Amino acid sequence: MSRPIGVAMLGCGTVGREVLRLLTDQSEELAARVGAAVRLVGVAVRRPRRHPEVPAELLTTDAAELINRDDVDVVIEVIGGIEPARPLLLAALRAGRGVVTANKALLAECGPELYAAADAAGADLYFEAAVAGAIPLLRPLRESLAGDRITRVTGIVNGTTNFILSAMDSSGAGYAETLEEASALGYAEADPTADVDGYDAASKAAILASLAFHTRVTSADVYREGIAEVSAADILAARQLGRTVKLLAICERVVDASGTESVSARVYPAMIPRSHPLATVAGAYNAVFVEADAAGALMFYGQGAGGAPTASAVLGDLVAVARNRVAGGYGPRESAHADLPIQPMGDTPTAYHVSLEVLDRPGVLAQVAQVFADHEVSIMAVRQTGRTPDHVPACGAGANLVIVTHCAPDAALRSTVDKLAGLDAVRDVVSVMRVEGEVT
Amino acid sequence: MSRPIGVAMLGCGTVGREVLRLLTDQSEELAARVGAAVRLVGVAVRRPRRHPEVPAELLTTDAAELINRDDVDVVIEVIGGIEPARPLLLAALRAGRGVVTANKALLAECGPELYAAADAAGADLYFEAAVAGAIPLLRPLRESLAGDRITRVTGIVNGTTNFILSAMDSSGAGYAETLEEASALGYAEADPTADVDGYDAASKAAILASLAFHTRVTSADVYREGIAEVSAADILAARQLGRTVKLLAICERVVDASGTESVSARVYPAMIPRSHPLATVAGAYNAVFVEADAAGALMFYGQGAGGAPTASAVLGDLVAVARNRVAGGYGPRESAHADLPIQPMGDTPTAYHVSLEVLDRPGVLAQVAQVFADHEVSIMAVRQTGRTPDHVPACGAGANLVIVTHCAPDAALRSTVDKLAGLDAVRDVVSVMRVEGEVT
Repeated sequence: MSRPIGVAMLGCGTVGREVLRLLTDQSEELAARVGAAVRLVGVAVRRPRRHPEVPAELLTTDAAELINRDDVDVVIEVIGGIEPARPLLLAALRAGRGVVTANKALLAECGPELYAAADAAGADLYFEAAVAGAIPLLRPLRESLAGDRITRVTGIVNGTTNFILSAMDSSGAGYAETLEEASALGYAEADPTADVDGYDAASKAAILASLAFHTRVTSADVYREGIAEVSAADILAARQLGRTVKLLAICERVVDASGTESVSARVYPAMIPRSHPLATVAGAYNAVFVEADAAGALMFYGQGAGGAPTASAVLGDLVAVARNRVAGGYGPRESAHADLPIQPMGDTPTAYHVSLEVLDRPGVLAQVAQVFADHEVSIMAVRQTGRTPDHVPACGAGANLVIVTHCAPDAALRSTVDKLAGLDAVRDVVSVMRVEGEVT
Repeated sequence: MSRPIGVAMLGCGTVGREVLRLLTDQSEELAARVGAAVRLVGVAVRRPRRHPEVPAELLTTDAAELINRDDVDVVIEVIGGIEPARPLLLAALRAGRGVVTANKALLAECGPELYAAADAAGADLYFEAAVAGAIPLLRPLRESLAGDRITRVTGIVNGTTNFILSAMDSSGAGYAETLEEASALGYAEADPTADVDGYDAASKAAILASLAFHTRVTSADVYREGIAEVSAADILAARQLGRTVKLLAICERVVDASGTESVSARVYPAMIPRSHPLATVAGAYNAVFVEADAAGALMFYGQGAGGAPTASAVLGDLVAVARNRVAGGYGPRESAHADLPIQPMGDTPTAYHVSLEVLDRPGVLAQVAQVFADHEVSIMAVRQTGRTPDHVPACGAGANLVIVTHCAPDAALRSTVDKLAGLDAVRDVVSVMRVEGEVT
């Protein structure tokens, strides 16, 4: 056995308390797996009196001092947010400490700075818990698929929005009502903005795209739409087409006609076929679907949040970092060797579902189809139905027209929809949503 | 950049050819990820003239000589089977070479010997491709969940049997007919014994149990039943209960009343609820459901076999081993520190579904229930239906009795079924199958 590995923890909230519990309960197991005792030597918190669960002699308010203590080998950060986590972790890395963090916002915004500090110091920076909680995902992406070529990562990576969309799909209720219910059940925060507007999913998309494509992608590079505009009509339209609506984080390697590669990272609600493995991921669960050249389709499923699942991922990273220190080395570095450009959303190929309330008269379909043709958007399927009882027009007969397109640049699709909305023959644009998960 | 990493490959069949292709296509990527060029220096095959795809100067028939060459750092073994893979890999490990293998039979039978040789020499032994093909599973089990406590691993790990059971479920056809169809479509081997009798799944269960519970489990320790006895009646009975039949590899940490832990590793067809994440895994796909104390439920899904998916896993391991050599170290060792005893199948708690054709007269249910009580087996649910048109008895009226039990020692359940079969009131035991995937 080597000398003990000293661990400092910054923060002690829901995840921190579970880390504490596992460090205690699993101490023998951890020692056996690491090849050395793993010893918690300090916990930095703002208000020590609020932490009776931590032995008093371990508590400190001075995180910067704790990091620099000689007996600290690894720093676990579970504070969250950008400040003061950022300067603390930079200091820890510069001091040669191994770092384990669950901080997705920090990694998505300041990842390149942190990776560079870790590289310069030869220190480990592990963050499995930052994406999809307990699901072992980053390690497989970065290590198991290291000899393969990942082409696409499609994830349900936010539990709150998945809970809301699953509930809307089951009940047929609208967004506002379902959000209220989710809040009451504790599935949505008092301020749900980060979740429902897609910021949380965009952070995770940035991290996933960086790892999958060896390119520095930050949250600012990720195109983002939330679920606040998803209506009961959208959910119903999806159902009628054998699809369901999910908030997806999509990271894609895009190759243009000239063979130039770029990376598309985007978050938006989309219709996916009910037969797709992601369609059955319900409630607050997360899942990530990965496509690679040789491996084919893979899916990783599990709990994306919660104290215990996140702590499990933190401990897995702690074991890896501690093992590396016992061996006197460090793990695989983050890599940005591909350094691909980010594709603007307007250029990204997507497919749309458009449901229109139109006048029920000859020539309307031709007129609508012409708008698609003018924008060089190819139509995959059209379904036209007569009078829709729910939408009896004030004057004249109405019909419903559902169009699903082939892939086209997103900007062309958006212009098409804008143009359609202005047609006299179109009474209402009932639902517009992107379609994912099948070859178009 | 360090000096190049030299790779020797033993065997060049379906998987080997894909490894060859990836090594060539991905050479720049591999070098970037490893931090050194990865160079194939030799391929050992039995009949060099049958391998026009391999550059002639790399081919050799002398595998033992190739392994010992000075320019070989890593040995990839894709021969399969026990001999001559076993002595070759032992020689490679003893010579300090890193070893990457896809050989599940060898690992399941001779794992302890190989792990010990790797330990003694300080050499890497990686085998992600041996279980569930391309699905990154072993690395997450061994590394990501290293700080958690795995309680159960339930896998669909054999594509042939899953294809057959999925087809029987869709078509209602019998086993023999469906096996024939699977053979015709190339989903079953000419001699399907290893698959349909559960030997292949048992090998994988041994490897999974070893990793999950830090205990040496070999294929001889795994209880095994195949799918040859699964009838159309079993599939129908499952369907009527909202269940489906899957061949499961189950590895479980069992704690008895006195708190003593042991490991149960077993393979058999079982009914699982259609709502279980494993139920939707259809055709030749594989999936493994993992339960851990802190992480909760996780599932890993993907292609379990095939040249390209398996090669993807081999390459991921190759990158890890090559990186370790560039860093001058080696990866986490196999660990048997828990060294738990193996629980005999008779003592293992399981639950049964039993469907009986009984005489339709008063008192039969009481008589049947008494048999369960005599064996201390608790009944969870009973469903009794009147005359079943498909089974009109030759004389007297018949009824169908379906019983699902709570968990009880498997031996008690088997004795119960034997006793039931001998009752005068029981005309026929229509279906007996274990039930998994729910709390009983």
